[in-house]
Amino acid sequence: MTQPELNSLPIEWLGDRVRMIDQTRLPLEEVFLELDDYRDVASAIKELNIRGAPAIGIAGAYAVALGALKMATGERGALLKEINAVIDAIAATRPTARNLFFALERMRRAAAGGDVPQIKQALVREAIAIHDEEADATCHLSQFGAGLIKDGWTVLTHCNTGPLATSGCGTALGVVIAAHRQGKKVNVLVDETRPLLQGARLTTWELKKAGVPGTLITVSMAGYFMKLGKVHCVITGADRIAANGDTANKIGTYTLAVLARENGIPFYIAAPT
Amino acid sequence: MTQPELNSLPIEWLGDRVRMIDQTRLPLEEVFLELDDYRDVASAIKELNIRGAPAIGIAGAYAVALGALKMATGERGALLKEINAVIDAIAATRPTARNLFFALERMRRAAAGGDVPQIKQALVREAIAIHDEEADATCHLSQFGAGLIKDGWTVLTHCNTGPLATSGCGTALGVVIAAHRQGKKVNVLVDETRPLLQGARLTTWELKKAGVPGTLITVSMAGYFMKLGKVHCVITGADRIAANGDTANKIGTYTLAVLARENGIPFYIAAPT
Repeated sequence: MTQPELNSLPIEWLGDRVRMIDQTRLPLEEVFLELDDYRDVASAIKELNIRGAPAIGIAGAYAVALGALKMATGERGALLKEINAVIDAIAATRPTARNLFFALERMRRAAAGGDVPQIKQALVREAIAIHDEEADATCHLSQFGAGLIKDGWTVLTHCNTGPLATSGCGTALGVVIAAHRQGKKVNVLVDETRPLLQGARLTTWELKKAGVPGTLITVSMAGYFMKLGKVHCVITGADRIAANGDTANKIGTYTLAVLARENGIPFYIAAPT
Repeated sequence: MTQPELNSLPIEWLGDRVRMIDQTRLPLEEVFLELDDYRDVASAIKELNIRGAPAIGIAGAYAVALGALKMATGERGALLKEINAVIDAIAATRPTARNLFFALERMRRAAAGGDVPQIKQALVREAIAIHDEEADATCHLSQFGAGLIKDGWTVLTHCNTGPLATSGCGTALGVVIAAHRQGKKVNVLVDETRPLLQGARLTTWELKKAGVPGTLITVSMAGYFMKLGKVHCVITGADRIAANGDTANKIGTYTLAVLARENGIPFYIAAPT
């Protein structure tokens, strides 16, 4: 499946280090960080240089691989102990993104067998696999979700859920970009997403890169546009999804859901399993 | 009725000029403008140096008085023509605040009788009367509304509706401040009110001046706090009220109203007739 050119920006594996666009500097500057120390990757997650639940999971996996690659010990037991300490440190960076804990669990399992060089290699392979699977999942999800979007629709979205958030095609915004690439005329209402302005800073930047028309609004305007009948559907991502289908996502998602129901507008969550 | 010390800040008549605190510089700087030219008052309304529906009505009335005081003509017909031109110029400053048009209509009628000096005097008297009545109305409204607020309540409000907005006691925020002065324990959730941040800049500043506890939140957080049961009522002002009771107010008010109904929370509009 063809991935958008945006897809390598959030995080890229360069063999002995990762490269990531510094999302705190967007949209004014496109600055890249190259990190080979897991502690720097942990900081980048904490400081939101990289964010978005799927992208954080990938970054966390690479952080564990980087940590293992640098370990000097030749003794298997010592190595595993150090790897577990790295995993615990990465797990402490962001409490909200469920993907991170799934990725770290996979990394913990990948470290189980083999000798020291084999474990290091297995961790690198597992992190790359997590990255590839996550990217593929979001690209499939985007293609699949694009079927929901009708030609001429205006879609309201919240926060940032494009390639920057996922390191693939995106989730909610990926759906809209995919619909646009299918030749449908779509327009996106992007709410600012206070206080950190992920919508204003990142989503508008991604839409511009992808050539999709969008309009920046305040969250306060979202209800007004719904009431006017100018919104055909709302799509957001999710930080996590409960077994019963309830979702947790960026503050303000509940507000949009209540407004959508009041105005009879479909509300979709676009998220990988 | 005792008025709060804040009440002379938004606009004060100094005999041949008005003094107003520059609300665009708050909360970082307390800068006052002294204006004796009606065109400067019109600019101050347009540029939001003074804002809030009741305060704009008062400023508009003083602008007409200032315009008349400076007119050189000794001929009654020419004076009235010039006064009408000033009224039209002031009416063009802000389309949303109904109070402005009511105040200008009163000024037009006040100019009807007498000779040139009498007309000028009548306009000054009428502007002062509008100011006094508006201030009294908001202080009565605040006292009256305070009866709705129970001890220990958390009140959510939008935009800025305190003394700065009214040149008296305020409307929605006046109610909360009055409840606080009656000895009730009240806490105010102030939403930022994007894009111009009237809540973040002005309401928090007024609460601090009045000694009322408040917490600044984003509009996105409002629904979350309602859902948690942490909001006992929502009070906002109104730009205008239709005969059937429908109100028009700052963008975002509809969003709060829908969320309040969803969560079974009383929603009050505090506005003078």
